[in-house]
Amino acid sequence: MFKEAIDHRPKNNYAYPYDDETLHIKLRSKKNDLNSVTLIYGDPFDWSNEEPILYESNMQVVYQDELYDYWFTSIKTINRRTHYVFSLKDDENSDSIIYSERGYFKEVPKQCPPCFFKVPFLNPIDVFKAPKWVKDTVWYQIFPERFANGDHSNDPEGTLKWGSKDPSPSNFFGGDFQGVIDHLDYLEELGITGIYFTPIFKATSNHKYDTIDYFEIDPQFGDKETFRELIQKCHERGIRVMLDAVFNHSGYYFEPFQDVLKHGEKSKYKDWFHIKEFPLQFEPRPNYDTFGFVPEMPKLNTENAAVKQYLLDVAKYWIEEFDIDGWRLDVANEIDHHFWREFRQEVKTVKDDVYILGEIWHDSMPWLQGDQFDAVMNYPFTEATLNFFARRTIHSKQFSHQINQVLAAYPESVNEVAFNLLGSHDTPRVLTQTKGDKNLAKLMYVFQLTFIGTPCIYYGDEIAMTGGEDPGCRKCMVWDEDKQDQDMLLFFKKMIELRHQEPLLRGEGQFSFIEANDEQNYVIYERKNENETILVALNNSSQTQQIELPKNYHHAIDLWTEKKIDYTMNLDAFGFKVLKA
Amino acid sequence: MFKEAIDHRPKNNYAYPYDDETLHIKLRSKKNDLNSVTLIYGDPFDWSNEEPILYESNMQVVYQDELYDYWFTSIKTINRRTHYVFSLKDDENSDSIIYSERGYFKEVPKQCPPCFFKVPFLNPIDVFKAPKWVKDTVWYQIFPERFANGDHSNDPEGTLKWGSKDPSPSNFFGGDFQGVIDHLDYLEELGITGIYFTPIFKATSNHKYDTIDYFEIDPQFGDKETFRELIQKCHERGIRVMLDAVFNHSGYYFEPFQDVLKHGEKSKYKDWFHIKEFPLQFEPRPNYDTFGFVPEMPKLNTENAAVKQYLLDVAKYWIEEFDIDGWRLDVANEIDHHFWREFRQEVKTVKDDVYILGEIWHDSMPWLQGDQFDAVMNYPFTEATLNFFARRTIHSKQFSHQINQVLAAYPESVNEVAFNLLGSHDTPRVLTQTKGDKNLAKLMYVFQLTFIGTPCIYYGDEIAMTGGEDPGCRKCMVWDEDKQDQDMLLFFKKMIELRHQEPLLRGEGQFSFIEANDEQNYVIYERKNENETILVALNNSSQTQQIELPKNYHHAIDLWTEKKIDYTMNLDAFGFKVLKA
Repeated sequence: MFKEAIDHRPKNNYAYPYDDETLHIKLRSKKNDLNSVTLIYGDPFDWSNEEPILYESNMQVVYQDELYDYWFTSIKTINRRTHYVFSLKDDENSDSIIYSERGYFKEVPKQCPPCFFKVPFLNPIDVFKAPKWVKDTVWYQIFPERFANGDHSNDPEGTLKWGSKDPSPSNFFGGDFQGVIDHLDYLEELGITGIYFTPIFKATSNHKYDTIDYFEIDPQFGDKETFRELIQKCHERGIRVMLDAVFNHSGYYFEPFQDVLKHGEKSKYKDWFHIKEFPLQFEPRPNYDTFGFVPEMPKLNTENAAVKQYLLDVAKYWIEEFDIDGWRLDVANEIDHHFWREFRQEVKTVKDDVYILGEIWHDSMPWLQGDQFDAVMNYPFTEATLNFFARRTIHSKQFSHQINQVLAAYPESVNEVAFNLLGSHDTPRVLTQTKGDKNLAKLMYVFQLTFIGTPCIYYGDEIAMTGGEDPGCRKCMVWDEDKQDQDMLLFFKKMIELRHQEPLLRGEGQFSFIEANDEQNYVIYERKNENETILVALNNSSQTQQIELPKNYHHAIDLWTEKKIDYTMNLDAFGFKVLKA
Repeated sequence: MFKEAIDHRPKNNYAYPYDDETLHIKLRSKKNDLNSVTLIYGDPFDWSNEEPILYESNMQVVYQDELYDYWFTSIKTINRRTHYVFSLKDDENSDSIIYSERGYFKEVPKQCPPCFFKVPFLNPIDVFKAPKWVKDTVWYQIFPERFANGDHSNDPEGTLKWGSKDPSPSNFFGGDFQGVIDHLDYLEELGITGIYFTPIFKATSNHKYDTIDYFEIDPQFGDKETFRELIQKCHERGIRVMLDAVFNHSGYYFEPFQDVLKHGEKSKYKDWFHIKEFPLQFEPRPNYDTFGFVPEMPKLNTENAAVKQYLLDVAKYWIEEFDIDGWRLDVANEIDHHFWREFRQEVKTVKDDVYILGEIWHDSMPWLQGDQFDAVMNYPFTEATLNFFARRTIHSKQFSHQINQVLAAYPESVNEVAFNLLGSHDTPRVLTQTKGDKNLAKLMYVFQLTFIGTPCIYYGDEIAMTGGEDPGCRKCMVWDEDKQDQDMLLFFKKMIELRHQEPLLRGEGQFSFIEANDEQNYVIYERKNENETILVALNNSSQTQQIELPKNYHHAIDLWTEKKIDYTMNLDAFGFKVLKA
């Protein structure tokens, strides 16, 4: 037994309350090293005749990556207090070894309660709880300057004709709220149930990440009444709206920063920023903290009580006054945890089912413990998917390993609401990543739309728009139907509809790979609950595949064609199948 | 290379800000598997000619336990933003392998910033910061009913003559605050600089863990004026005072619980507790949550806003009105994290250097992230020390492994203020654990008083009192000097003085084992900083030892005898040495 590879530490992703009475327990071991793992658990205070009362639960390998097996079980707590050890077996006939917080034992250390791992008490307030609606949402990301220009009266000076030029870091095409309102039918028909807007507040640039006033709509997008109308019309159609909270830094023309520029050390706002010395200096690098080294984006000092109050007021204002449904938090990882904890308390008090989504590109466990965010932008998912289908730098097995690694890194409750994106205003578009290959792009979308979590489609991907790194990925949306890829649009509509129809494909179904075939480069995975099961096969190869169905899928329904498949499925080159047993 | 054993995850104990500009980074690997580990790090935004600017820092093995090496380095952050990978070598001549958040690479994945581990921004408010005075404190735990009876006028009915009987779960001896005041000279001479009192609030039992009124002193201990006098006199002598906050549960006679007993479902306090159904039932087990299954100790519902406010008011009251210096939190692990976060904010606002100490017997990382506690009662330290010296179930190496495991499990900043106890009102006394062997007990005390953290002496241990499991360990303090072990008392005074004299023995010095000799059963460890170093040798064997000194200790000073030792130290059977280079 490779003891050194075995890992478990309560809280985080290894032991957490799934709901108010259920605990999930996971254990990591070297891949294929252990034959069985049994959780031995009880209430630490529950003794009978000087022996602790203990229960057993067999654990299963639910994820496997390059190096590890991840064992899992779900239990109901006894009196909400839980302590436990693991019984490990090398092979069926070997003696078991007990793994505890104090190391390894030959037998359960019954007389040593402190040796047991502990989840001391399941307090409901500490349970990670994301809004229930998130699992069922299909998001659509809109970069408002580029979605649709519905009102020319608010076009900024020098606005270019829609789509007449490639986007540059500084040009404007006049996209606005009226444009979004005008195309809500389109979004509804597509099956969208949530819109994520990149920033809409008064700012200088076309991307609006350099806020001037957090309480004002940028005039190029419209006014507050138009915005209110937009929200109401979205809500009428069952579409939720999420805004971008750029709280890490302000823009250069943010009044408090202007005040500091003007009055220097005497400004009452001098502690609103992280200024190393006066006078302020911009070159070669700013002598105050900024986003990256961008002098126009001074970092806000969120430890300062006045700044904190200001930003919390902003966060509440747009919920209270306009009934928005979510906040996406820009550069969330560079703001202090105290701020985010208060943020959560404040916004959830105003609207208890508001969604809090952090922009974090790396491992985000410290933000996903139930006290800060509901989800993060799942870039590790993005990377694995791009690597496999678009960049073609990995094969099936590695893909399954990378995806499993993401899943194993978090509680299941976190995975169920992860914000799964394949592209955004910050990355090249999917179709550009696949070098224009639409079949590969479709495989990626099928994966995204049948994966656990909540998918987000970047505006225009559904009509096969292309575009490289920013600003290339920020082209004007194409509204001329002749120039839209109607086949891709139909594909999206059907795939999204399928997701809406099948709860299993949303948060309800457990996700697991059942085959990752390196030679043929296809993957097969399942989404299942206690009653039902759906199988998805993705053929990431130019060869057609004939694959015998697992027994429980004999005579399954092909959800795409609505035909029955008896014993064998045929996968086209770069084709896919979604079967329901 | 045994990749499966390699572990690192930012935040927690593996990567944390040590102070406002310093990061500590640790990596775990299989014991003796790696030849070298180098941290490669930089500011993720700091690029030059499309290459990230990266720095290197060599890591050292600072702890070793049964299975693992723990590598460590301390760096100053660049612009407070840090991302990093590790360069690992099997042996001197092998190629290095890069370990990143996205797995292993042959070369540093310079063009993949998301592959790097990240501590995205060092926000001072998120840094774990315990009060500075804690490192220098020598605590003394007083169980007030049994320390000294200084005022017979407040003796409860049926009070027994001091020390006339063995303690029982229900008998009383009349210990009180006047008794403590009367013996402050004694404590000052002993070298004590902090007193931890088990509960003093109005309660039913002799241990007072069943609170009736959190705003009242138990009349058997005196009144508020006497308590105020006690605190003032302690402060005059440089002795800090910590009280016991029993917030997990109240006593049976706590008014809100009495109200629930009386009015049942109609009580306005019904949500103050966790009641499963009405009417309340006590047998066979209470139908409401309690401490253990003790019906007289109903668990308080700390999620309830009124309960939370009440307890926070209590916490602030005793600081604001009486200037206490610390709160020890009873059954801290069963109360929700939200409560403790608010608790910290509230009490630190009232007095910024108040010490928050949680009673947790197991791995406590989730409570020690800077947002909740300053320390926990370090029972894993207690267990390892008892195992080695008293129970004799482990040898030197295992002892060093168990101690190193405790140290490796936490940030260094946490280790520096850990509350290191060898006995308490909840465990058999040290001398009873050593079956009366005073030399073994002394070895344990030397270890405790030269270890990193803050030591706590249980009242009476310094005069060699004995006593088994509760109530045996709660005997009346012996004040008859003829019955006190004066040799032990002198030993304690000298050892404590040594600790006060040598900052290295307190928080200032890094701790590391330099030898753990299984055959001869002795251990040698060092406390050191950049300038100085102290060596401690503990001979846990009946054989005398002649040990050649490491070169840097040639001509060292024996701090105990104040004599010089040139090249070889002689350790008596069960003897010890404390040498300063």
